[in-house]
Amino acid sequence: MNQQRPTALEAFPVLIELPVQWGDQDSFGHVNNTVYFRWFESARIAYLEQLNLRGGPRGPDPIGPILASIKCDFRRQLTYPDRVLVGARVTRIGRSSIGMAHLVWSRGLEAVAAEGDSTLVVFDYQAGRPHPVPVELRQAIAALQGAVEGA
Amino acid sequence: MNQQRPTALEAFPVLIELPVQWGDQDSFGHVNNTVYFRWFESARIAYLEQLNLRGGPRGPDPIGPILASIKCDFRRQLTYPDRVLVGARVTRIGRSSIGMAHLVWSRGLEAVAAEGDSTLVVFDYQAGRPHPVPVELRQAIAALQGAVEGA
Amino acid sequence: MNQQRPTALEAFPVLIELPVQWGDQDSFGHVNNTVYFRWFESARIAYLEQLNLRGGPRGPDPIGPILASIKCDFRRQLTYPDRVLVGARVTRIGRSSIGMAHLVWSRGLEAVAAEGDSTLVVFDYQAGRPHPVPVELRQAIAALQGAVEGA
Amino acid sequence: MNQQRPTALEAFPVLIELPVQWGDQDSFGHVNNTVYFRWFESARIAYLEQLNLRGGPRGPDPIGPILASIKCDFRRQLTYPDRVLVGARVTRIGRSSIGMAHLVWSRGLEAVAAEGDSTLVVFDYQAGRPHPVPVELRQAIAALQGAVEGA
Repeated sequence: MNQQRPTALEAFPVLIELPVQWGDQDSFGHVNNTVYFRWFESARIAYLEQLNLRGGPRGPDPIGPILASIKCDFRRQLTYPDRVLVGARVTRIGRSSIGMAHLVWSRGLEAVAAEGDSTLVVFDYQAGRPHPVPVELRQAIAALQGAVEGA
Repeated sequence: MNQQRPTALEAFPVLIELPVQWGDQDSFGHVNNTVYFRWFESARIAYLEQLNLRGGPRGPDPIGPILASIKCDFRRQLTYPDRVLVGARVTRIGRSSIGMAHLVWSRGLEAVAAEGDSTLVVFDYQAGRPHPVPVELRQAIAALQGAVEGA
Repeated sequence: MNQQRPTALEAFPVLIELPVQWGDQDSFGHVNNTVYFRWFESARIAYLEQLNLRGGPRGPDPIGPILASIKCDFRRQLTYPDRVLVGARVTRIGRSSIGMAHLVWSRGLEAVAAEGDSTLVVFDYQAGRPHPVPVELRQAIAALQGAVEGA
Repeated sequence: MNQQRPTALEAFPVLIELPVQWGDQDSFGHVNNTVYFRWFESARIAYLEQLNLRGGPRGPDPIGPILASIKCDFRRQLTYPDRVLVGARVTRIGRSSIGMAHLVWSRGLEAVAAEGDSTLVVFDYQAGRPHPVPVELRQAIAALQGAVEGA
């Protein structure tokens, strides 16, 4: 398992693996910065699925996540071909907000390629305003990864 | 001109205008978060062109910018159709790094849709390491937008 | 007006103008092939808006377009910076299908950069099957661009 | 192996597997048409790597492929989550051109989701014109997948 889940990713309860596609590279010949945010999104969605937080602006359930803020620190340039592991974990829970950390691990470089930090808001898309983090959501996060600051 | 350049954008010496494309929207029916980073990139490139900082990992000149970090705070959800103004300005200059602020203004909403902050590093792609910000670059930034912290 | 609407585009009743973004370029240093399909889509949507064909898989109206097939012939390599004009026009109308032609004109090259051809099907997203092209749609197309084969 | 390589893909000597990402979906809630062309590209690149055709507009070797034309017939709507198998095979070899067929297989639907057809031109990026298909390239294709029309 060590081979598949590097130490740097051990803290991440949700982890997805994605290929670097040739077309992810830009004119500088390395993976474009926007692609990292697509990877973060995919890991975030995978995490939220485990919480059963599936509502949104469409469909019967109006309570869903909205991305309020996101940051990426780029550590290494990536190129095709490669495969990345992308992790997501909750770092803090506020009244209506959830902080999430991300990590991109390059299998080719055997190194951390990027670190990310985001803030989600639990949003009532029908009312058009933030909604308190439901207690079941807090419990689901705790069940998935243990205690979290602010939870 | 007031109509074309809202007050919030007055501090930005470089400003580009882009259409929201239908395909910029994701399954939630609003502009996907990765698109904002594409817009920031386009404004950043437009700014750097004015500085004549054109080197990169390919071509004869190895001294070029590399994106070290970028953040976006999302203020408003955007939908098609709309047009956005995207601004870029330098906020700080370090030994090898340049801080840049971004703003996305929605013409349709007549409101700030997002704010961004990034750190570029002047990179020597041949040597594979950061390069001090050239004095001509500092002068070009000053000429474009006046005094900057750390310059 | 000749300057803004080249002869090659005269047959196109709907025309949009888009900037080439730096990030549209791939590792080969020219605009990636997928970007042309995004441009075609934007012109197609602009055309369909004029027909008031706004239904889809979501929302109250289930009758909307679905893309059945699309082709692009690439004529010229494009690079940043440039601006493109993208045209859409209906070329044929079948029982449930609509043929559409596209053209990409490069302002920088003053040349046709790509030609496209697509087939849309009028789809009943509720019933999950094709729907005959409504007579009002045929009339709206005729009003927009004159007689069409099969109409 | 039958489970991993459906009959429809048997004719394809090169096959890649990719996840559908949530962000691949557009406002209609299904995978956007441009994504299929990204998938085709990834399979095409994987095929070309096996041929050792690695030249391009940059780097020491100027002889590389250029995409002249590409078409996609969409058979099924795709949604997240899913995984796709994407195949590439050469269908014809001309003086300077190579025809390639593509297939997208949905693991979730257990069905063909799309079929594609493209024309590549062997291009001399230095001379700026097509280059005859090298005999070693013809041999490499034959070795990979057997006899091809026009070869």
